Amino acid sequence: MRYRPHLRIVFLALASFVAPTRPVSGDETASPSVSVLVAYYSRTGNTEQMALAVAEAAGRVPGVAVSLKKVGEVTQRDLQSARGIILGAPAYYANIPGAMKVVIDDWSWKMKVDFTDKVGGAFATGGGQAGGKEHVLVSLLLFMINNRMVVAGPLFEDEQGDDKWAEIGAAAMTGPLDPKVGPGELDAARRLGNRIARLAMKMNAR
Amino acid sequence: MRYRPHLRIVFLALASFVAPTRPVSGDETASPSVSVLVAYYSRTGNTEQMALAVAEAAGRVPGVAVSLKKVGEVTQRDLQSARGIILGAPAYYANIPGAMKVVIDDWSWKMKVDFTDKVGGAFATGGGQAGGKEHVLVSLLLFMINNRMVVAGPLFEDEQGDDKWAEIGAAAMTGPLDPKVGPGELDAARRLGNRIARLAMKMNAR
Amino acid sequence: MRYRPHLRIVFLALASFVAPTRPVSGDETASPSVSVLVAYYSRTGNTEQMALAVAEAAGRVPGVAVSLKKVGEVTQRDLQSARGIILGAPAYYANIPGAMKVVIDDWSWKMKVDFTDKVGGAFATGGGQAGGKEHVLVSLLLFMINNRMVVAGPLFEDEQGDDKWAEIGAAAMTGPLDPKVGPGELDAARRLGNRIARLAMKMNAR
Amino acid sequence: MRYRPHLRIVFLALASFVAPTRPVSGDETASPSVSVLVAYYSRTGNTEQMALAVAEAAGRVPGVAVSLKKVGEVTQRDLQSARGIILGAPAYYANIPGAMKVVIDDWSWKMKVDFTDKVGGAFATGGGQAGGKEHVLVSLLLFMINNRMVVAGPLFEDEQGDDKWAEIGAAAMTGPLDPKVGPGELDAARRLGNRIARLAMKMNAR
Repeated sequence: MRYRPHLRIVFLALASFVAPTRPVSGDETASPSVSVLVAYYSRTGNTEQMALAVAEAAGRVPGVAVSLKKVGEVTQRDLQSARGIILGAPAYYANIPGAMKVVIDDWSWKMKVDFTDKVGGAFATGGGQAGGKEHVLVSLLLFMINNRMVVAGPLFEDEQGDDKWAEIGAAAMTGPLDPKVGPGELDAARRLGNRIARLAMKMNAR
Repeated sequence: MRYRPHLRIVFLALASFVAPTRPVSGDETASPSVSVLVAYYSRTGNTEQMALAVAEAAGRVPGVAVSLKKVGEVTQRDLQSARGIILGAPAYYANIPGAMKVVIDDWSWKMKVDFTDKVGGAFATGGGQAGGKEHVLVSLLLFMINNRMVVAGPLFEDEQGDDKWAEIGAAAMTGPLDPKVGPGELDAARRLGNRIARLAMKMNAR
Repeated sequence: MRYRPHLRIVFLALASFVAPTRPVSGDETASPSVSVLVAYYSRTGNTEQMALAVAEAAGRVPGVAVSLKKVGEVTQRDLQSARGIILGAPAYYANIPGAMKVVIDDWSWKMKVDFTDKVGGAFATGGGQAGGKEHVLVSLLLFMINNRMVVAGPLFEDEQGDDKWAEIGAAAMTGPLDPKVGPGELDAARRLGNRIARLAMKMNAR
Repeated sequence: MRYRPHLRIVFLALASFVAPTRPVSGDETASPSVSVLVAYYSRTGNTEQMALAVAEAAGRVPGVAVSLKKVGEVTQRDLQSARGIILGAPAYYANIPGAMKVVIDDWSWKMKVDFTDKVGGAFATGGGQAGGKEHVLVSLLLFMINNRMVVAGPLFEDEQGDDKWAEIGAAAMTGPLDPKVGPGELDAARRLGNRIARLAMKMNAR
């Protein structure tokens, strides 16, 4: 995907926002930070929009340093250092895009990354109510489970707090019937980032 | 669920609509009709609304006689005579409701129905973009595949006809964020009814 | 995978076996033959072994002409002419291998093949009882459903004929615990080939 | 896997009962124990056999107290006190049995249990390589994810330790082709119990 200007603006805004929690300044604080990697595949920019919201919310969790990358840019070191990994993809014929799967197949096979006990979550975009977004989420979670990770989804509750639940991941409907990523969908993305970041912290408590 | 008055009205309207295609009048025509059963579980009425749209569209396919029932009312004879079976359910913790599964588990086990080569489709309702609606669709399709059926989903195309696809089934988002069954969702339900009815005809061509 | 000599021999044997049902000699018979394509991805040869069994059984169905190809060799014309398509893959991290998905993503996107009402089935190999073989089957079936196909699985019955069922596809366990493709697994592959070929015939009856 | 002698001893001890690993003796130790609940549905005893192996292995993890129950016997208190929950079921038409789903649907709905951050895993039994065992595992995991849990599967490695992976859960093939629960399948069950118990400890570290 060409990096569209307006997205870059959003991204920069995010980058400056996220900056304080990145492990840039060694002198900053004594508390060790936990790394969370948000990695995605996006051609039209919809999945990228979700990725930005996921990363932004993960970065707000105290003690968490977020890294946001397209899957093709993810390095062995990114994967090894991350305690939380959140993967996002559009539905291509109800499944993970081939161009993304080719990349992530190499993570443990060729890069030899050990994912044991890293915490994972997933987000997806796609047209239609039943066009495969959820199957993509399940597929990404099973990819992570098979790689020895522990997985979870975003937490929700109703306004009264009477009803509490989680979802399989964060998803946005982006087809002809509902072309854009809406506020409720970005809210789910943020809840996902928050949940996985918090769990990554919890799993690494001493 | 108590049968709510306004739904009964819709249902009666549908019943009168569907009537001409039912095999009621023996003298009617020489062409044999193909039976399609729409069976659903619904407590709040959302899944029932989808069921009505599915049934209405299936009944419009020439040569098709539709039967619309709650799963608890379905008889052995309904199942045996149906050439197409369309099942609908809300997502209960991302899966088929127990109260529905208890009933349909008996269809081949106790009722000894042979489902070989019957054509199946599925619809579902549920809160959230990723609350399990799609997993319910997949679960219902696998239930049918395991019972020797052949399954498919509703057909779609964009306005220009350039893009054509199908979905896993028809689904409606019905949680707090989007409480009602909307027109696009009912459209998907109708497409599902149409597709399965047409396939049931095709599979029974001589 | 390099095409291993002994497999080529088997394949040729199969090809000569299948030959009578291929539409080679136009003068042969008045009955039109129905094409079934078996397309697979295989590195170690396990999935290829399953593919051979699927193809052999499909080719035994009277009136069916089988084509057996690696996914990378499948042409637009193969896809367009096939009335039945059976896809096979090993589980890579519980999902379709990226190298295969890249290829099949292009079938409707770039090759513009219309798959409407073609009949599909799936087979898979993989290590472990729960290493993702079944998720690969479901993923391939949803790929096909999303491409407007109608899908089904292999039929089984116990020796007494009292119990009859189908499975989601044909699968072989091929990991360290059970390295080879066994006779029961090849039997499932043959049942899959038979079922999809018969359904392809039935869907194209006049 | 070779059936290791000391495991056989434990297995017999378990059969006689789980009690020794239960937090019965208050004088035992100062370290707080973490509860793990193994809950299953079984008619023929196959799933129960898997449950016993899961429970036995979970109980060997230091600091873990295991409770083993049929789903119908599970109390609100069992669920509330458990930090890890492992669910097992046979595949009924490729899905969770209705009789089990009816029970577990009530856990958060009627019993109002809050499952947030409890750690979950799943095991399943069923006939055939692709008869739905894995779909049952996925369905149970999604049930747990939807109930705000964190989920994972059993860990494996080859003899050389070169290859490491996890599976979606523990599964046993139990149909006509392979009627009994075998040693490799019980090994997977033990690995599942061990993994979930360890994660439940880790998630509750202070």
